[in-house]
Amino acid sequence: MFTELDDEHGLKLAIQQAKKSAKEGGVPIGSSLLTSVDGVVRVISASHNQRIQKNSAILHGETATLEKAGRLKADVYRNATMYTTLSPCDMCTGAIILYNIPRVVIGENANFVGGEDYLRSRGVEVTVLENQECKDLMSKFIKEHPEEWNEDIGEP
Amino acid sequence: MFTELDDEHGLKLAIQQAKKSAKEGGVPIGSSLLTSVDGVVRVISASHNQRIQKNSAILHGETATLEKAGRLKADVYRNATMYTTLSPCDMCTGAIILYNIPRVVIGENANFVGGEDYLRSRGVEVTVLENQECKDLMSKFIKEHPEEWNEDIGEP
Repeated sequence: MFTELDDEHGLKLAIQQAKKSAKEGGVPIGSSLLTSVDGVVRVISASHNQRIQKNSAILHGETATLEKAGRLKADVYRNATMYTTLSPCDMCTGAIILYNIPRVVIGENANFVGGEDYLRSRGVEVTVLENQECKDLMSKFIKEHPEEWNEDIGEP
Repeated sequence: MFTELDDEHGLKLAIQQAKKSAKEGGVPIGSSLLTSVDGVVRVISASHNQRIQKNSAILHGETATLEKAGRLKADVYRNATMYTTLSPCDMCTGAIILYNIPRVVIGENANFVGGEDYLRSRGVEVTVLENQECKDLMSKFIKEHPEEWNEDIGEP
């Protein structure tokens, strides 16, 4: 199992990605996918939302991280933890369930609550870290770019 | 509302995409997204699974179709129907829910049953056409490429 220290490390990588997206003018949501092999933590992938950068409807933080990793065998996902700066939307929730990722660590869910209950109902362990940096990144974007944010979550 | 004739048209476009993928050596699952504006049916997008073609973990039929369409306003999705040759996996189910697509028409669910019940529980109208061509395309691929198929649905 990951220790609490590893969770902070995983989330830090996700926050780096969120900040990178913010600098590019994008939606500041980042993710990372980590695993532990023989006690050594390995970063499988890390990426960020690319709606604005790539005119994309499906590259959210979590899905972009899965896409960047390319094709992986089922057991890689089944021994990994997904870190994300914001509570995952229904699409990203479904992607986590599809690949049987057993654990999701969420930076914050104050600005948006996604499929946390559904993840739990499908056997995924969900941890919310209530990270202030994640909250600030997101609330700033929502305040400054309400239209882009609503588009990203399918709202008018 | 779409008529039964339009459903056959929408599924036909999805089947064309599935066949295109098969010819490319890919997973033969295709989708299309259609809407009706002032009584005229309009094809918003159509694409296919690209796991093998693009080394992709997230480009399934439905998500590839959404991606190809680019950024759309919420009301476009809310007046569209998603056609897909195979019952949608959990990820594609989540994408349909994220964008509030109100109706999904499925070619077949004999080879795989995805998130149909969850779609219905979230208010999406689900129709299964039991199309023989869709069944044959998929069963041939599963028989000839069991490893790639299992990878596509996150199974070992």
